[in-house]
Amino acid sequence: MSSTSVTVARVTSELQKIVGRRLREQRESLGLSQEAMAERLGYHRTFLGSVERGERNLTLASVEQLAASLGVPALDLLRD
Amino acid sequence: MSSTSVTVARVTSELQKIVGRRLREQRESLGLSQEAMAERLGYHRTFLGSVERGERNLTLASVEQLAASLGVPALDLLRD
Repeated sequence: MSSTSVTVARVTSELQKIVGRRLREQRESLGLSQEAMAERLGYHRTFLGSVERGERNLTLASVEQLAASLGVPALDLLRD
Repeated sequence: MSSTSVTVARVTSELQKIVGRRLREQRESLGLSQEAMAERLGYHRTFLGSVERGERNLTLASVEQLAASLGVPALDLLRD
């Protein structure tokens, strides 16, 4: 067993911010309020707000569920 | 409060599988065994194996950390 030490860098989550922006764009293109969109997605309004602000470290499966609910490819929510 | 019922579809996580395939490709292009790659990433070998098989529902931040460790853009790990 080697004694390699591993430094895990604290990475600012750019992906979270991208997903948040894309989600907000989707909502705005649908002309929905956060409250209406949250209801459509089965989220609480405050949770949706935090996702839109890029504050939620979503899992891959959550991103896919979100994309499926919106009817868009998951990659569309992840692309800058 | 409305009584909208929300059905959350069980989505097979395609993204998990994509990340797994991309990670395996990266490892193979580096000519590393799972054990050597796991050590480099600070993972346990069995964890790396499960990621490569698409069994881990990673968070966005984890995908970014992984990409940063590999020196590739996060999107490269998410693209089919």
